[in-house]
Amino acid sequence: MTSELVFWLAPAGVIVGLLFAALFYRDMLRQDAGSEHMQRIGGHVQRGAMAYVAQQYRIMLWVFLGLGLLFTLLSFGFGVQSRYLPALFLAGGAFSALAGYVGMQTATRASVRTAAAARHSLGGALRVAFRSGAVMGLVVVALGLGNVLAWLLFATAFMPATAEQGGGLVLITTTGLSFGMGASLQALFARVGGGIYTKAADVGADLVGKVEKGIPEDDPRNPAVIADNVGDNVGDVAGMGADLFESYCGSLLAATALGAAAWSQDPVMQLKAVVAPLAVAGLGILLSVVGVFIVTTREGASQKQLLASLSRGINVSAVLILLASAAVLHGLGITNPWGLWGAVVSGLVTGIVVGRATEYATSPGYSPTRRVAAQAEGGAATTLIAGLGAGMQSTAIPVLAVAVGTLMAFLCASGFDIEQLNVGLYGVAIAAVGMLSTLGITLASDAYGPIADNAGGNVEMCELGPEVRARTDALDSLGNTTAATGKGFAIGSAALTALALIASYIEVVRLEMLRRGETVLLMESGVSIELSVASLQDFMAYFNVTLLNPVVLAAMFIGSMTAFVFSGMTMQAVGRAASAMVDEVRRQFRENPGILRGDCEPDYASCVEISTLGAQREMIAPALLAVLVPVATGLILGVAGVIGLLSGGLATGFVLAVFLSNAGGAWDNAKKYVEEGHHGGKNSRAHHAAVIGDTVGDPFKDTAGPSLNILVKLMSIVAIVMTGVTVGFSLL
Amino acid sequence: MTSELVFWLAPAGVIVGLLFAALFYRDMLRQDAGSEHMQRIGGHVQRGAMAYVAQQYRIMLWVFLGLGLLFTLLSFGFGVQSRYLPALFLAGGAFSALAGYVGMQTATRASVRTAAAARHSLGGALRVAFRSGAVMGLVVVALGLGNVLAWLLFATAFMPATAEQGGGLVLITTTGLSFGMGASLQALFARVGGGIYTKAADVGADLVGKVEKGIPEDDPRNPAVIADNVGDNVGDVAGMGADLFESYCGSLLAATALGAAAWSQDPVMQLKAVVAPLAVAGLGILLSVVGVFIVTTREGASQKQLLASLSRGINVSAVLILLASAAVLHGLGITNPWGLWGAVVSGLVTGIVVGRATEYATSPGYSPTRRVAAQAEGGAATTLIAGLGAGMQSTAIPVLAVAVGTLMAFLCASGFDIEQLNVGLYGVAIAAVGMLSTLGITLASDAYGPIADNAGGNVEMCELGPEVRARTDALDSLGNTTAATGKGFAIGSAALTALALIASYIEVVRLEMLRRGETVLLMESGVSIELSVASLQDFMAYFNVTLLNPVVLAAMFIGSMTAFVFSGMTMQAVGRAASAMVDEVRRQFRENPGILRGDCEPDYASCVEISTLGAQREMIAPALLAVLVPVATGLILGVAGVIGLLSGGLATGFVLAVFLSNAGGAWDNAKKYVEEGHHGGKNSRAHHAAVIGDTVGDPFKDTAGPSLNILVKLMSIVAIVMTGVTVGFSLL
Repeated sequence: MTSELVFWLAPAGVIVGLLFAALFYRDMLRQDAGSEHMQRIGGHVQRGAMAYVAQQYRIMLWVFLGLGLLFTLLSFGFGVQSRYLPALFLAGGAFSALAGYVGMQTATRASVRTAAAARHSLGGALRVAFRSGAVMGLVVVALGLGNVLAWLLFATAFMPATAEQGGGLVLITTTGLSFGMGASLQALFARVGGGIYTKAADVGADLVGKVEKGIPEDDPRNPAVIADNVGDNVGDVAGMGADLFESYCGSLLAATALGAAAWSQDPVMQLKAVVAPLAVAGLGILLSVVGVFIVTTREGASQKQLLASLSRGINVSAVLILLASAAVLHGLGITNPWGLWGAVVSGLVTGIVVGRATEYATSPGYSPTRRVAAQAEGGAATTLIAGLGAGMQSTAIPVLAVAVGTLMAFLCASGFDIEQLNVGLYGVAIAAVGMLSTLGITLASDAYGPIADNAGGNVEMCELGPEVRARTDALDSLGNTTAATGKGFAIGSAALTALALIASYIEVVRLEMLRRGETVLLMESGVSIELSVASLQDFMAYFNVTLLNPVVLAAMFIGSMTAFVFSGMTMQAVGRAASAMVDEVRRQFRENPGILRGDCEPDYASCVEISTLGAQREMIAPALLAVLVPVATGLILGVAGVIGLLSGGLATGFVLAVFLSNAGGAWDNAKKYVEEGHHGGKNSRAHHAAVIGDTVGDPFKDTAGPSLNILVKLMSIVAIVMTGVTVGFSLL
Repeated sequence: MTSELVFWLAPAGVIVGLLFAALFYRDMLRQDAGSEHMQRIGGHVQRGAMAYVAQQYRIMLWVFLGLGLLFTLLSFGFGVQSRYLPALFLAGGAFSALAGYVGMQTATRASVRTAAAARHSLGGALRVAFRSGAVMGLVVVALGLGNVLAWLLFATAFMPATAEQGGGLVLITTTGLSFGMGASLQALFARVGGGIYTKAADVGADLVGKVEKGIPEDDPRNPAVIADNVGDNVGDVAGMGADLFESYCGSLLAATALGAAAWSQDPVMQLKAVVAPLAVAGLGILLSVVGVFIVTTREGASQKQLLASLSRGINVSAVLILLASAAVLHGLGITNPWGLWGAVVSGLVTGIVVGRATEYATSPGYSPTRRVAAQAEGGAATTLIAGLGAGMQSTAIPVLAVAVGTLMAFLCASGFDIEQLNVGLYGVAIAAVGMLSTLGITLASDAYGPIADNAGGNVEMCELGPEVRARTDALDSLGNTTAATGKGFAIGSAALTALALIASYIEVVRLEMLRRGETVLLMESGVSIELSVASLQDFMAYFNVTLLNPVVLAAMFIGSMTAFVFSGMTMQAVGRAASAMVDEVRRQFRENPGILRGDCEPDYASCVEISTLGAQREMIAPALLAVLVPVATGLILGVAGVIGLLSGGLATGFVLAVFLSNAGGAWDNAKKYVEEGHHGGKNSRAHHAAVIGDTVGDPFKDTAGPSLNILVKLMSIVAIVMTGVTVGFSLL
């Protein structure tokens, strides 16, 4: 295999990915959309989702245009890369939004068709739901890789080369990181807004409907039921998609930037280092498509068989990528191909371990969740203490896995030489790319979850037969498992991506200093080192980025604290938005008694609007925090402070995210375990306690936890984009 | 003032401190101990407390002897300082235990006398309780300073000087850190064990007595009531005392070690730098005694006046220390006295800000706690979400205060030159000493809390009149406020002390390398630097301790995770120990119906025993984690890994501790606020929800949160003591 051939894997992946996404979408639309009643309910959900999207995108448009203008103005003063910054920033936001839009359009249309298919067979319903999920998965990866590729091709053709040797590709790749800023900001709005939306609707629907009025889940008489179903799409489809779109683009961009920087003295190897992550990603898309076709099942399959079928698809893709990437890296003729392959493997294995650990921590089949369920007999307080304790302890394995994975990736890529920071950190970015190479199919199984969930809602609201409900329940329950692993995967990949972004930061600093006409680093010892050949260690020494520098330590404290304060803000936001929802549902029941009798349809739209507005209003403060803290730290504490902030924020944010997600997942499944008849079953004292645990866990696992994924990445990328300002004007 | 005179402030402080502790103790014993009934109840509590202490000290004795033997054996192979390590280690444990023992003896005897005094006047009761608290405060500081002083004098006389210039004092002071290891391990057992004990008893007493049987707090029919009262002493007196004894010794030892290292080339300044923290500490003891005499009140004083009286004592001490320390530092003739004074001020101010922020976050007088109380109307789930969110957001101010305080202390001490790491870090340690200089009186107001609480319990159990109960309630309520500020103070000082200890670590590494016969650092660039004159920056570069080194980053992740896992373990431990207590209380009520009718006394001793055994058993796993993680990290990841681990653990552990303490405090006071008649008052729906919040908050604020203070310090000191092993045998 020659290196030119390898390059073509990337565009091939993009084209094939988009092609199959279109095919799966067309296939889905051709399916039977069910009875008129089913379509009416589905229409409510779809309109609600689109209302949310329209509202959010309208706000986003103004934010992006405002920031784009700001960046344009700043570009006159700061940075070579800032000339392209506004366009890249807007493109990042726009394509992330497009991916989210396609995903939501598909999911809302697919759920009613899944429900319709479930009237006839389980296998058919699985097929509709999963392939529709694959639309989202493939669109995200194809658009992500396609954009990175397009930027590189465009810039190679049109961007002026600089005098610096090898500077062309370094400049091009680091400039490309601005694309990540757009994707990241859009992800913040989608994840935080979506998280607030979905939990406000869920808590509101449950507290009044289930608890106060005693009507079942997904009952059409509940005014918040449509908002609740919309929330699944808004949070788990659009939010998760934007989150992983950002990780995907971020890891690719960081890998290209670090690769270009590591081999800046050797143009041939440099090009290969930039191509390698793109080729691995392209390969991943192609083999994800293969995996999607493996997921099938026959009628009467048990829950276990369904899960096995899904797992088989993902596992086959992963193993094929493992094997093929070895060939690809060899064919590329890059230095140390086995070492880089080791990095790919580290990433893939870390992703699998984190996913499994999440499943262990949250599945009712294992002791942690069962112990939480057992404590429910002692009441709400013991349930909560047990869940919080279990969540904290559950951080051990995922964090160790990422720590070991990072270290292994670094060591493999650097030939076990810890001094080779450049190449080693490139290896860490490659590990992130490796982990995300299966994203096409893992995201398919994530997006499948809310589709199955909504299909169940549709079946319930249309009062179809119990055997239909049993089929959608089986699909839904499977979706809960994939959602748990998906969450672990999202957290793990966010951590690796953020690490790679932090590593890229210093390359951007170097470029900014070159732009300012600085040519040497003047070291404390009096030695001067030429900027263009200065190693990362030299930069670290120059900026005094050691763990005894009080600036670094103080900034680390602030980073840790930011993760907690950000989580607290999103938790409080859910509380406030849910209160508004509770008031509205109570009002409708009070003012129109016909609703509860089933005589007339409740006003679904007003609940959708309350969740939408609440989400928009409440996401402003956390968004500002995430953007302003790195800018302020950079302005006051300088480069050393920024790196301290980002590391502290990442270390704490990552562990906190695992804790919140796993505690929430454990409570959720402990409740389900009790409902299955354990510890007294439904409506027992233990059940009431478990419901309280689940309600507390909702904002943990669906709002605060996932939002932290965005925080750690967004802070890094804001720091990168703001380098021009912070390097020029920092106080210290 | 000449520098010799200044030195004598330290022994003077020790002597005066011990003298007044003895005087206050004698005074307290002379007070009326109340009726025979009161004395019987007081005797139960006292015997229970002593039973716990005896049991814990028995286990501690074996642990210490075992580890002492291990260190003796290791000392043949590793390290100059390890010759004295076993003795210092044992002394650290023994004196911490002694301070705890004296505190408990005083507190248990004082509470019954406070109750007796409350029969006559509020002012008299306050005087007994507060001066008895001062016994604990003064014993802790006098023993702490006395031990550090004794070691320095002993070692200067008997320890062989090394060939290295200035090596004598460097060796002596870094060796002294082993004393901190003993104090730290004892603190771990006291804090974790005490925290588990007190909450198991509290939760057990509340869940069965208050919730199931509907009998009031502190009712003598409740079998767990004595254990609950013992728990206040075990957790808040002995645990808090051991925690702050460790911080006090740790900050002094770190300051002397960093001072000796910073001026290792100038023996005159070196001696002054070692004397300075001791003199400031001695001054602090003298002026704390002055402050104790200022705390008085007249009969009929309102809650506000009581608080004002306590605050006046602390504030007068603080201001006097501020003024006098300027004179002392000038008199000492140290370089840059104003800069070091700035560091003292930074520490003192940080302590005050953290205390105030804690009060704001947890007092029912401010909006955060009131918002939690308001959410109680929505039920348990919204109360919990609100408290968790508020706790997370409350980390902002304390963490910022410590970050800014650290930075200011560094900058002042180093003459605003960030490159002067040595002197700057000495400044950070001086800030910790400055913050803790008021410890004599702040700890008095902490220890006062449980005395007043127990006095209230005694009054309730002996069924004295309502006007007596009103007086003890006023004292108790004041104690809750001082406890909140005390917790903030303990966390803030732990963070600063841990920072100073991390900074000392590298000096110990230097000594260990010298001992191994290494004489130069061979830098990557080929330059060699003599070990004895290598700067901290040189060490950082040699060991590659930068934030882009994957070893450092992986270790930071592990440090963050350790803080969470450790907290999870202690939370779960409380859950298990409380379950055993619940079973026992239920058993007694069931098997002996006479108890509930008030016909016969319940078996208090068996409940005391259950809490004692539970605490002993449950503290083993967290203790092992705290000791093994730094050792394993050192062995596998080396010096860079250790520093990464400690920084990550500190950044996350500190913020997590603030979160846990403040969330717990907010729930506690939200419950009290509801009980005062807001949101429906006692026995309303909101009250039930608030009680659940309070129960969840108990292990937050009294077990997991405070235990983290110990974790961050203990991990640092274990790393320091284990340097001989980890530098010699690390894998990376």
